[in-house]
Amino acid sequence: MARSPRRAGAPRLQLPLLCLLLQGATAILFAVFVRYNHETDAALWHWGNHSNSDNEFYFRYPSFQDVHVMVFVGFGFLMAFLQRYGFGSVGFTFLLAAFALQWSTLIQGFFHSLHGGYIHVSVNSMINADFCAGAVLISFGAILGKTGPAQLLLMTLLEVVLFGINEFVLLNLLRVKDAGGSMTIHTFGAYFGLVLSRVLYRPQLEKSKHRQGSVYHSDLFAMIGHACEQTARFKEQLHCTPEGPQDERSSLRPSCHGGPMGSPPSPPGLAWEPHTGTIFLWIFWPSFNSAPTTLGDGQHRTALNTYYSLSASTLGTFAMSALVGERGRLDMVHIQNAALAGGVVVGTAGEMMLTPFGALTAGFLAGTVSTLGYKFFTPILEAKFKVQDTCGVHNLHGIPGVLGALLGVLVVGLATHEAYGEGLGSVFPLIAKGQRTAMSQAMYQLFGLFVTLMFASVGGALGGLLLKLPCLGSPADCQCYEDQVYWEVPGEHEDAAQGPLKAEEPDTQA
Amino acid sequence: MARSPRRAGAPRLQLPLLCLLLQGATAILFAVFVRYNHETDAALWHWGNHSNSDNEFYFRYPSFQDVHVMVFVGFGFLMAFLQRYGFGSVGFTFLLAAFALQWSTLIQGFFHSLHGGYIHVSVNSMINADFCAGAVLISFGAILGKTGPAQLLLMTLLEVVLFGINEFVLLNLLRVKDAGGSMTIHTFGAYFGLVLSRVLYRPQLEKSKHRQGSVYHSDLFAMIGHACEQTARFKEQLHCTPEGPQDERSSLRPSCHGGPMGSPPSPPGLAWEPHTGTIFLWIFWPSFNSAPTTLGDGQHRTALNTYYSLSASTLGTFAMSALVGERGRLDMVHIQNAALAGGVVVGTAGEMMLTPFGALTAGFLAGTVSTLGYKFFTPILEAKFKVQDTCGVHNLHGIPGVLGALLGVLVVGLATHEAYGEGLGSVFPLIAKGQRTAMSQAMYQLFGLFVTLMFASVGGALGGLLLKLPCLGSPADCQCYEDQVYWEVPGEHEDAAQGPLKAEEPDTQA
Amino acid sequence: MARSPRRAGAPRLQLPLLCLLLQGATAILFAVFVRYNHETDAALWHWGNHSNSDNEFYFRYPSFQDVHVMVFVGFGFLMAFLQRYGFGSVGFTFLLAAFALQWSTLIQGFFHSLHGGYIHVSVNSMINADFCAGAVLISFGAILGKTGPAQLLLMTLLEVVLFGINEFVLLNLLRVKDAGGSMTIHTFGAYFGLVLSRVLYRPQLEKSKHRQGSVYHSDLFAMIGHACEQTARFKEQLHCTPEGPQDERSSLRPSCHGGPMGSPPSPPGLAWEPHTGTIFLWIFWPSFNSAPTTLGDGQHRTALNTYYSLSASTLGTFAMSALVGERGRLDMVHIQNAALAGGVVVGTAGEMMLTPFGALTAGFLAGTVSTLGYKFFTPILEAKFKVQDTCGVHNLHGIPGVLGALLGVLVVGLATHEAYGEGLGSVFPLIAKGQRTAMSQAMYQLFGLFVTLMFASVGGALGGLLLKLPCLGSPADCQCYEDQVYWEVPGEHEDAAQGPLKAEEPDTQA
Repeated sequence: MARSPRRAGAPRLQLPLLCLLLQGATAILFAVFVRYNHETDAALWHWGNHSNSDNEFYFRYPSFQDVHVMVFVGFGFLMAFLQRYGFGSVGFTFLLAAFALQWSTLIQGFFHSLHGGYIHVSVNSMINADFCAGAVLISFGAILGKTGPAQLLLMTLLEVVLFGINEFVLLNLLRVKDAGGSMTIHTFGAYFGLVLSRVLYRPQLEKSKHRQGSVYHSDLFAMIGHACEQTARFKEQLHCTPEGPQDERSSLRPSCHGGPMGSPPSPPGLAWEPHTGTIFLWIFWPSFNSAPTTLGDGQHRTALNTYYSLSASTLGTFAMSALVGERGRLDMVHIQNAALAGGVVVGTAGEMMLTPFGALTAGFLAGTVSTLGYKFFTPILEAKFKVQDTCGVHNLHGIPGVLGALLGVLVVGLATHEAYGEGLGSVFPLIAKGQRTAMSQAMYQLFGLFVTLMFASVGGALGGLLLKLPCLGSPADCQCYEDQVYWEVPGEHEDAAQGPLKAEEPDTQA
Repeated sequence: MARSPRRAGAPRLQLPLLCLLLQGATAILFAVFVRYNHETDAALWHWGNHSNSDNEFYFRYPSFQDVHVMVFVGFGFLMAFLQRYGFGSVGFTFLLAAFALQWSTLIQGFFHSLHGGYIHVSVNSMINADFCAGAVLISFGAILGKTGPAQLLLMTLLEVVLFGINEFVLLNLLRVKDAGGSMTIHTFGAYFGLVLSRVLYRPQLEKSKHRQGSVYHSDLFAMIGHACEQTARFKEQLHCTPEGPQDERSSLRPSCHGGPMGSPPSPPGLAWEPHTGTIFLWIFWPSFNSAPTTLGDGQHRTALNTYYSLSASTLGTFAMSALVGERGRLDMVHIQNAALAGGVVVGTAGEMMLTPFGALTAGFLAGTVSTLGYKFFTPILEAKFKVQDTCGVHNLHGIPGVLGALLGVLVVGLATHEAYGEGLGSVFPLIAKGQRTAMSQAMYQLFGLFVTLMFASVGGALGGLLLKLPCLGSPADCQCYEDQVYWEVPGEHEDAAQGPLKAEEPDTQA
Repeated sequence: MARSPRRAGAPRLQLPLLCLLLQGATAILFAVFVRYNHETDAALWHWGNHSNSDNEFYFRYPSFQDVHVMVFVGFGFLMAFLQRYGFGSVGFTFLLAAFALQWSTLIQGFFHSLHGGYIHVSVNSMINADFCAGAVLISFGAILGKTGPAQLLLMTLLEVVLFGINEFVLLNLLRVKDAGGSMTIHTFGAYFGLVLSRVLYRPQLEKSKHRQGSVYHSDLFAMIGHACEQTARFKEQLHCTPEGPQDERSSLRPSCHGGPMGSPPSPPGLAWEPHTGTIFLWIFWPSFNSAPTTLGDGQHRTALNTYYSLSASTLGTFAMSALVGERGRLDMVHIQNAALAGGVVVGTAGEMMLTPFGALTAGFLAGTVSTLGYKFFTPILEAKFKVQDTCGVHNLHGIPGVLGALLGVLVVGLATHEAYGEGLGSVFPLIAKGQRTAMSQAMYQLFGLFVTLMFASVGGALGGLLLKLPCLGSPADCQCYEDQVYWEVPGEHEDAAQGPLKAEEPDTQA
């Protein structure tokens, strides 16, 4: 029992009670406020004389399902690169997203679809809730492995509210265009998480960063991705040499009492299988940006622009990665992150008359800048700014999100009646009505970016202070990036239950 | 050759001949009975003056593809958690589903779409066939690893027929509502498989259950999911200690002649990568439940209800898992199974006016009950009831399916003209026509559940007796959960072909 | 530094400059030629008085996304079976496809949608570009691991042009039907790659083929698929025995200076995780074949035919695999490849009145022939024809593609006015107009196959000569199937940067 994990300070009932509380409160609010809208309510739909093919379900649902895959498979698995934190990465993604989409249905509903005292839900609510969950998961990426589930649920509670307010300010007050969420999702989510990570800065964690995959260069044998099995073998060979294992392990691991849990020690390594996540994001991004746009040409054009932008950011990323790589070689970390920047960068401008050429150019620049940012800016982000960005969301969402907002400013500023014709009213209603010029709309877009950065920064700071509350039981430094703090791991479980089996454990004999 | 696997009793031509026979018979029946319907036949479609957008393909096909992913990726990969049975899990999923969907096209066609002596097929046939294949795969989950492919094909042959009859009794005779199949798919599939597993009970198998992942607690170093590479390493370390491997292996493995096949021994362990399967099921369940409902508001509402139910069952599962877990920790096995219960539980009621609040509540209860069932009921299922439920289908499909049927009884009983308005006719035609009251329809629903349980139990018992036919060559106890009985494994293959290579095999030297 | 990789002959700026050049040229051509079409342009769409539901986006986009998944997840991951080439398989798939879809937008646009000097793009451009990228990836499969990224980009540059010309000749000049691309995609892609692989034949590579997964039978312990973790363990056990590792490794690896890179040696093995790729291809193939067909009954029928064909090819594959397998056992390699032949074989005939029975029969034959081809023809492909087909594209795309073209000839020849009714005009416009008889259309189809084979062969030969240009720096034989030539591998990276760590590397000590 001396070897049992020292649990984080949180009492053991904290997570169950918080889940029950949040779910109970959400359910009550649903009972009071949430109703089917005219397309999902049997009475309302059949009251009018609709053709079934007019139901917005058929225009939005296929895109929604793609977005849903992106949020759960894409964001969740993209984070599952920490060798000893696979359960936490995927499991907490699941938990946070499941809560965020209920909670944001309420928050976004209050701001956007409150009619007669009721929030009316439909496939659009699902898309918007998934978008909000996406922003939460982006923030989660910046603090992955350094917080417990109760802390994360509270962060979600706060962030969803601020996301809703920021979105309301931008879309309803400033009347800014941002269908694919360069500002509202990517910029907001990234900087909320980065500021929060700054507040939670752990100076001692730096030394144990070998457990964190993305900065794992000091491990000679770490390999990424599908080659992870190789790693296992390399390591074994090392550990099997009589003189090898103990020395190497102890020198690399600033252990707290013989391994974080006293449980079977895993040599540091990397179990990254990110391709699935990356590739699903890459594939479905056209659906992400086009899901909430105006029907018809708007949705069609957005998908097309995103498709071209992603393809160009891929080539830009390969070019830059090989250019800055040692001996001209490619870095898979760049490919996996920067190639997606093309989707983020057209989040705002994708529904506009960006032109296919514009999409290619924007995507190429985004891929290039993101790769360069990864190479040259990431190393100083922790060193100088004290931001420990576990998943590198700054390069994947932060920079490309800001670039996307600026691209939006540019494309809005260039909007003309000639280019949009009668379609101007559906893309820029205020310009079409003569209430704004293209230039003033562009200024509003720029102001929207600043508002977003402000909300994200202040919100992230508040979130950080909230998460520092002692009662929440933040994991100790040596418990970071360790699943065993929050998850039952069968081996260790048995270990506690059945004493006699201990003899088979090499660690105790060592 | 003394080391070559002792094949199960089945003659070597059994599987090829059975495949050829079944495929030949199916093809002949297709030639005689199956025709394109008016939406897939060139002449019939162009005879009327249809708009292409009226073709039901556009309303159903996106949902069908999601269902298709669930059946093949979701069900197949969710089973691929047995370390030495990965080929069998995924390969036989493939085989059974491919046969089931042809065979159920015929069976369901005879019962539901036989017009003028012909079965008319369209995207609805594909959805229904996939649903039936889903039920077969649920049953397969209960007996996974304990039967050969010929046995499984015969089980499919029988189960598809009984599935079709049960579905016909419920939907056409009793006029029960069950769009998402809480009864017809989940309850039927689960109890068919569980009773079948009871009949095939192998008392000796209990002792060798370490090869079966889900009860793998006796293995100190087993870890689940993405952490599987870790396992490899832990084990190596163990095996590399001079005194370790032989002892440990022999003590844990009740081998039949030095390992089941005499082939390179794998230390017991767990190669579970279930997240992909789980998450795809979670993501696409709204499409599953809504695929066959009435168009328009029905499909839209079903997707929305399922979405909310799943999110609440996820929070309920996390709450309960942490509550009952040792030292307040979460169990990934709960998360992966119980979080999906929210999809099953609204299978019947999802298309009704369940209200978003009702969906949250139902999902939360389903997640809670499923987790508790997992924790407290599963251990006694084998011990007391002698049911060896390989994949835990009782918790994932059985209990939530019954709960879903009961929820349907409740929601049907509460149906009012006020709530459904003119839509009552499309959801409950008999009530709208005044042929039934809401209460009597509720009683029919309840009766439908009993009919389903009866068909499933009797069918499962029959299936068990059928599979016990000696000529089918059931694998011996020591061949269970072993791919090498039915699959060529390159190493062993070469071993037989090229004698000289033997020298490199440590097993022979040991 | 003596241990640093001997880079291929290519100068280090070659890949970046080539990417920049190709992307720059493509962008300029886009700026000059590519415009939104009437469904994606704001002005054009709103000029007419369209209903949004008429926008072709809603009829094609769900299918497009499925195709997109197939091209990136299906083709990419199906190739990721080489243990030490996972980055290259997935990364170069990404690079080639991203370039191919831009370049083919231009090439196909010039041939098919050039109106008023402009290429007009829409969701159809995306589908067609993805199809072309699919053909490029099929060819890539034949030469995987034996060429560098610059070579592959040049191959793509050439192949996309030839693909476009061949498609133009078939569809526009010969007026051949080939919606699912049995000829234009599968046959063309396969034979282009196979001839190219013949020209690049490396006689010495044969000896080191143990690094190539699909012919990995000489490795006693190689296991495929999910069992890969097992492999890691088996191998470790082997290597940990004092006398084992060095001997075995050196005898199996014709190393060039102590391992290709002097980097930590990986014992030969197999890291194949192909199920995901295979199953996504199997699931989405109905969308692939139906994506570009005529709307309404055409698209509906094609999806249905493909669905039945795939299910029958799966049973055929299992039957044949067990029949020809040693001791009646199944070979996972057959299942993964031949089960997909049913999708390829109805690529041409799927949109025709093939009948469900015809689809079953065609699929069954394709699965059977493909399995037999794998068993009996593959071994002589390299031995006799000197074609090193890394991924076995001949069995998966080549033979089934030719069979599909021939099936098309048959079904076209049997076309009657009775069978197609008024729909004849949409499937066979020339027959409906009386300009061709069914028989003459069938002859055109057959001629289309020969044209395709000719373009593919001549093109592949040209491509081979192009790729042999010395300035392109083909990797040396010992660098084939090795990621480290083109990718930064963290371990090795550090190795070069930090000398002192060398001491931890077992290889240098050995």
